[in-house]
Amino acid sequence: MIMKQTENETLTQKTKPVKVGNHLIGGDHFTLIAGPCSIENKEHFELTSKTVRSLGANLIRGGIWKLRTSADSFQGLGKDSFNFIRQTLKENNLSLVSEITDPRQIEEIHDFVDMFQIGSRNMHNYALLKEVGLTQKPVLIKRGFAALIDEWIKSTEYVRKGGNENVILCERGIRTFETATRNTLDLNAVVYVKNRTHLPVIVDPSHGIGIRSLVPQMAYAAAASGCDGLIIEVHPNPEKALSDGQQTLNFSEFEVLVKQLEKILDAIGRPLSKN
Amino acid sequence: MIMKQTENETLTQKTKPVKVGNHLIGGDHFTLIAGPCSIENKEHFELTSKTVRSLGANLIRGGIWKLRTSADSFQGLGKDSFNFIRQTLKENNLSLVSEITDPRQIEEIHDFVDMFQIGSRNMHNYALLKEVGLTQKPVLIKRGFAALIDEWIKSTEYVRKGGNENVILCERGIRTFETATRNTLDLNAVVYVKNRTHLPVIVDPSHGIGIRSLVPQMAYAAAASGCDGLIIEVHPNPEKALSDGQQTLNFSEFEVLVKQLEKILDAIGRPLSKN
Amino acid sequence: MIMKQTENETLTQKTKPVKVGNHLIGGDHFTLIAGPCSIENKEHFELTSKTVRSLGANLIRGGIWKLRTSADSFQGLGKDSFNFIRQTLKENNLSLVSEITDPRQIEEIHDFVDMFQIGSRNMHNYALLKEVGLTQKPVLIKRGFAALIDEWIKSTEYVRKGGNENVILCERGIRTFETATRNTLDLNAVVYVKNRTHLPVIVDPSHGIGIRSLVPQMAYAAAASGCDGLIIEVHPNPEKALSDGQQTLNFSEFEVLVKQLEKILDAIGRPLSKN
Amino acid sequence: MIMKQTENETLTQKTKPVKVGNHLIGGDHFTLIAGPCSIENKEHFELTSKTVRSLGANLIRGGIWKLRTSADSFQGLGKDSFNFIRQTLKENNLSLVSEITDPRQIEEIHDFVDMFQIGSRNMHNYALLKEVGLTQKPVLIKRGFAALIDEWIKSTEYVRKGGNENVILCERGIRTFETATRNTLDLNAVVYVKNRTHLPVIVDPSHGIGIRSLVPQMAYAAAASGCDGLIIEVHPNPEKALSDGQQTLNFSEFEVLVKQLEKILDAIGRPLSKN
Repeated sequence: MIMKQTENETLTQKTKPVKVGNHLIGGDHFTLIAGPCSIENKEHFELTSKTVRSLGANLIRGGIWKLRTSADSFQGLGKDSFNFIRQTLKENNLSLVSEITDPRQIEEIHDFVDMFQIGSRNMHNYALLKEVGLTQKPVLIKRGFAALIDEWIKSTEYVRKGGNENVILCERGIRTFETATRNTLDLNAVVYVKNRTHLPVIVDPSHGIGIRSLVPQMAYAAAASGCDGLIIEVHPNPEKALSDGQQTLNFSEFEVLVKQLEKILDAIGRPLSKN
Repeated sequence: MIMKQTENETLTQKTKPVKVGNHLIGGDHFTLIAGPCSIENKEHFELTSKTVRSLGANLIRGGIWKLRTSADSFQGLGKDSFNFIRQTLKENNLSLVSEITDPRQIEEIHDFVDMFQIGSRNMHNYALLKEVGLTQKPVLIKRGFAALIDEWIKSTEYVRKGGNENVILCERGIRTFETATRNTLDLNAVVYVKNRTHLPVIVDPSHGIGIRSLVPQMAYAAAASGCDGLIIEVHPNPEKALSDGQQTLNFSEFEVLVKQLEKILDAIGRPLSKN
Repeated sequence: MIMKQTENETLTQKTKPVKVGNHLIGGDHFTLIAGPCSIENKEHFELTSKTVRSLGANLIRGGIWKLRTSADSFQGLGKDSFNFIRQTLKENNLSLVSEITDPRQIEEIHDFVDMFQIGSRNMHNYALLKEVGLTQKPVLIKRGFAALIDEWIKSTEYVRKGGNENVILCERGIRTFETATRNTLDLNAVVYVKNRTHLPVIVDPSHGIGIRSLVPQMAYAAAASGCDGLIIEVHPNPEKALSDGQQTLNFSEFEVLVKQLEKILDAIGRPLSKN
Repeated sequence: MIMKQTENETLTQKTKPVKVGNHLIGGDHFTLIAGPCSIENKEHFELTSKTVRSLGANLIRGGIWKLRTSADSFQGLGKDSFNFIRQTLKENNLSLVSEITDPRQIEEIHDFVDMFQIGSRNMHNYALLKEVGLTQKPVLIKRGFAALIDEWIKSTEYVRKGGNENVILCERGIRTFETATRNTLDLNAVVYVKNRTHLPVIVDPSHGIGIRSLVPQMAYAAAASGCDGLIIEVHPNPEKALSDGQQTLNFSEFEVLVKQLEKILDAIGRPLSKN
């Protein structure tokens, strides 16, 4: 997959799209994934999911288990949420992307999640990667916050070795000396990986800059860089979100973002997917 | 200049444009600066300048003195080039941006350079910044490759304290753990600075990613992020350039870039400047 | 555990020692852990363990499962080695420190391993930390290669919340822009953590600098900084080691290191443990 | 000077000592440089210099011009201090190390300063390095806070090319993602440079960790790593220092440090210089 070449040979790998539910990531259209950081309760999840879907999102994101620096922070609803998530997705015909943090969770949520997310802190957790490689479920691998591009690409081998070729990458910002922003969104990495591999790459501007009012500009930049989609945190009332509120958009902010994003996507000839 | 606020208050400072020659940076239009890394000889400089100007560049870049890691690398033409640069600019009605590396150079090139550039390695060279602050010539301050955004903004005070308010910032990539790309272009910083100060900010995607074939995608990303312009290295024959050839576009690559850039700029309502 | 204070108040927390096998880490004496990166076979493990023990090592290190960037690299012997490891430890009265990479491994090696090691890439794998927190086995938490000191300290809460207070930290170098050395050994972090918490802290100079001939000098520096012990990679024939050979000492290099180390430890009044 | 070799070949370059005043740096003995961050006035300078000298310092440090992030911070006494510095040094038979920040300062202080210091922010200021290369005065080049070891070594060529071989390096901490400490003191770099070049290398633990109470432990670690000396900030009353007070020792803290340092230096067979 990693092709050797001189640095300035133009390569431009053709991206091999990956199907997630009924949606194709990495094809002729651009993918928008949106939803809350954590799933907080049935009403919250249903309202958020339906709203972002109606505003243009193709897939829903939402965390069931959360990795938090402190053991005392909110860790996600876990099992208690399975039933209402299943119901909400079915009634509204939605596809869900959700993070797993332990190999034993795969079986538990396999029936209702459409794409497993491997979070930034688990990109090097190869035991977990091997286990999702034994399924055929699409896997979104977020770049480790201090992972070299090369390590990020190589991490996909742990999934593919098991027989699962449905791998999508997600750039979400790296850790640098800069502290004014939560992370440093590395769009260089997006362009580099898209040019040298066939893997679809999406971008998470919410974690990438970590400041709500600046998320939209970074979403536009990411789209213009040539990535295959975006994943964005949205909440009915970000100030009250149980996690990551400071970087989460409310519905009207998300609506404005989608409108401006569509103009840029039209300009580069890769319109937002309608399914 | 640095306004204190809560992180998520939308601020969006109104940018105060700066006049460089007859051209305005930071106004309603987008600025394109292009030219060689180093000025190599009269023919090379004239050909490159006229070509990039005809293809859409507003201002010309070109190095007279080069800061090189090794004392044995090409250090620029220096004084020998003054006469032909002066003549080329005059005959073709061009405006030049060029780097100074020593306070004693200011007087030498003050008459024919339209904007002084402070390179990344000299952003913390406050003796130099103070000295350009005593002129009224516009100053382009490149971000130190390991400078905090806050230090970058504060460096402008050394210029402004002398009475020179004509300061423009340039993001050119920071040094991180990543080695696949020359630097990590930090578009977060562009969005952050534009939102919190009135300073025009341009982006250097050539140094920002350092790989020729990937420069255009980063130029588009930068434009969509909302910066005020781009500075791009162009050479008739990059393989033979005396410095930075691996990140320099040839004329046809530059032409393609300008065309795609214009589409994105039109989409975001900030067309490329025509003067 | 994390005491709030002004930066320059001298705090100097009293370290609470942790018992590993019959050995105390963090008490009046200094601890030396040594052994191969990976356990390669019975003869190799027995020879290495007995030799380092006779040269002054208190505890043996040795990997059963290895986290490797590439899925095609040697991944450790796994289950096949359990029997001969058990036998070797028993016959020679040795205590073993070994890394776990999956929560399901805890039960498998609980009976013969004296301290579980959490590797740098798993410091943020909180599912794994929670699980070792449910045992009473000592846990050595290596600092994530890009973990803030604060995150490193907080990671111990995931273990301690389960009731396991036997936590020891290990600084093993962080990822920075520097590429001449494998990592940047951060002795600042050792001094900082020792001063502000009661946790024993040991140092891994092998990974910390990653260049065999320079490991001893960094071992001496670490000892003088005030850490509670060292963990060092040793192999009968480092050039043929299945992993990390470039940073592994041979027996005679290790012998020289121990002699010089003892002089420094005597000078600072904290002699090498004899048990 | 930079010898190519395989990584694990033991090289151990023989250090070529440099004479500073009547003192030799890089020889059989260890050098201690101490004094205030900034020279604040005659009484302060005289008291501090005489005290640190009597407690064991071989050379005095003290800033005449300060590089500060903000243009509004104290910038040093400049010319006003020349006369009293000259007098103090002469009357007490002291040798001074002091930073220059502008090529035009060389001539001004050449007669009374025994070693020019190039600060971290000016390591890449090659115009300045070239200029000190035209003198025969010893030059202490602090590592740029984000300079690769290779760039640091190459920066010495700018001095040596002019004919000045009296170059000494100083590691003072690099900028990383860690924020608990002011910088990350990189002792790996000391060991690496000592092993591969003949240049004397000293260490600045004051800037290296930036927290007063932790400076001594890092001084001991540096000494044990094999460096040729230390440079330490000392002030009669650090809380009232005009710059860097948070990392500056008072006299009694310095006295304690020297005593413990001497024990470690004796253990490694390289006693503190007595001249």
